[in-house]
Amino acid sequence: MKKAVILLSGGLDSATTLYMAKDQGFDCYALSFDYGQKHSSELSAAKAIAESAGVIEHKIIPLNLRLIGGSALTDDSFSVPTDSDLTSSDIPVTYVPARNTVFLSIAMGYAEVIGSQNIFIGVNAVDYSGYPDCRPEFIHAFEVMANLATKASVEGQKLKINTPLIDLTKAEIVTQGTKLGLDYALTVSCYQADAAGKACGVCDSCRLRAQGFADAGLSDPTIYS
Amino acid sequence: MKKAVILLSGGLDSATTLYMAKDQGFDCYALSFDYGQKHSSELSAAKAIAESAGVIEHKIIPLNLRLIGGSALTDDSFSVPTDSDLTSSDIPVTYVPARNTVFLSIAMGYAEVIGSQNIFIGVNAVDYSGYPDCRPEFIHAFEVMANLATKASVEGQKLKINTPLIDLTKAEIVTQGTKLGLDYALTVSCYQADAAGKACGVCDSCRLRAQGFADAGLSDPTIYS
Repeated sequence: MKKAVILLSGGLDSATTLYMAKDQGFDCYALSFDYGQKHSSELSAAKAIAESAGVIEHKIIPLNLRLIGGSALTDDSFSVPTDSDLTSSDIPVTYVPARNTVFLSIAMGYAEVIGSQNIFIGVNAVDYSGYPDCRPEFIHAFEVMANLATKASVEGQKLKINTPLIDLTKAEIVTQGTKLGLDYALTVSCYQADAAGKACGVCDSCRLRAQGFADAGLSDPTIYS
Repeated sequence: MKKAVILLSGGLDSATTLYMAKDQGFDCYALSFDYGQKHSSELSAAKAIAESAGVIEHKIIPLNLRLIGGSALTDDSFSVPTDSDLTSSDIPVTYVPARNTVFLSIAMGYAEVIGSQNIFIGVNAVDYSGYPDCRPEFIHAFEVMANLATKASVEGQKLKINTPLIDLTKAEIVTQGTKLGLDYALTVSCYQADAAGKACGVCDSCRLRAQGFADAGLSDPTIYS
């Protein structure tokens, strides 16, 4: 069996990505980060999702990005916005500096240690929030860099960054995940979910998620506070 | 004043890099990592060096790379080698998977938050240990990726990864640092330094360091155990 490292936040996109990797026949190694996010209940969601998917291993790495700050998700001096124009091309204050780069870098190290040549990340270029580190050109540049960074790459084991959601709408994502048996009630997308994982319903992430279920014609299992 | 983020391990190379950045007129923000390294006394050295250089800020980020392992520096099931052929092109077991990539990624986030467009890292392509993430082609690829990863880059603020040691021998490095007033007695290079920072004298890092001082005709201030 081929091994894959899956970046698993506990949200809808990464959970779907995990189920897709599993469906492709990979032995899955899930990786989550306790990075000081306000919505840390997503980590409980990540554990439940990893278990439901039958991963080989699930690591949760503590890395306090609040020490750097600069985001509404990690800095208490910012509020999570609830009235953003989701069609705007502006990068919102929920952008976390360097987040995907840091997570992919640690995933790269984890992949090297377990002998995996595949990382999966649930970035999406359609119904996303304008984050620069979700764009295909960023992912491509990361992959080029990664293939110069490691001992494994020097020895000819190329690393691939898999982005199965990149061209899907949110509706297509939930449709595919549902077909694969993913129970979206396990996932937490809300940027300010409470300790029990209940969603606010008004942040950008909640609104994109709700629209996805509506567009797909699927019932929304999200538990709102 | 321009701001720069300096990756500061507490060793000879990064300390010299900090003094060079300061000499170039940068306001310096030092960044160190408590990553589970066996030679954690380098962090005390980093504090002393940062203070001696008069940095604006020195952050030490806890990030336990032992959770991933795979290196003689972070995994107790490996020993630090003391009889390597330093002229070999093999990558030694002291290679830490993804280390420079992870550190540069977090430095990128820190730079973005403080509004800096310069990161300094003391990688060296001459008297080094064969690590893939010290090569110029890796640094170049990281810079390309970084300039697609951040909100700052989207807004036109390009990030530069400065590598002032890249083409210097160890002897040239200590010669330049000495001219800039760096007290190398503050620095700890040893991969298995004791809690007081005393060096073993036999690991690869100790041997490269001692040879550098000898080649430069400078007295070696290293305190050996």
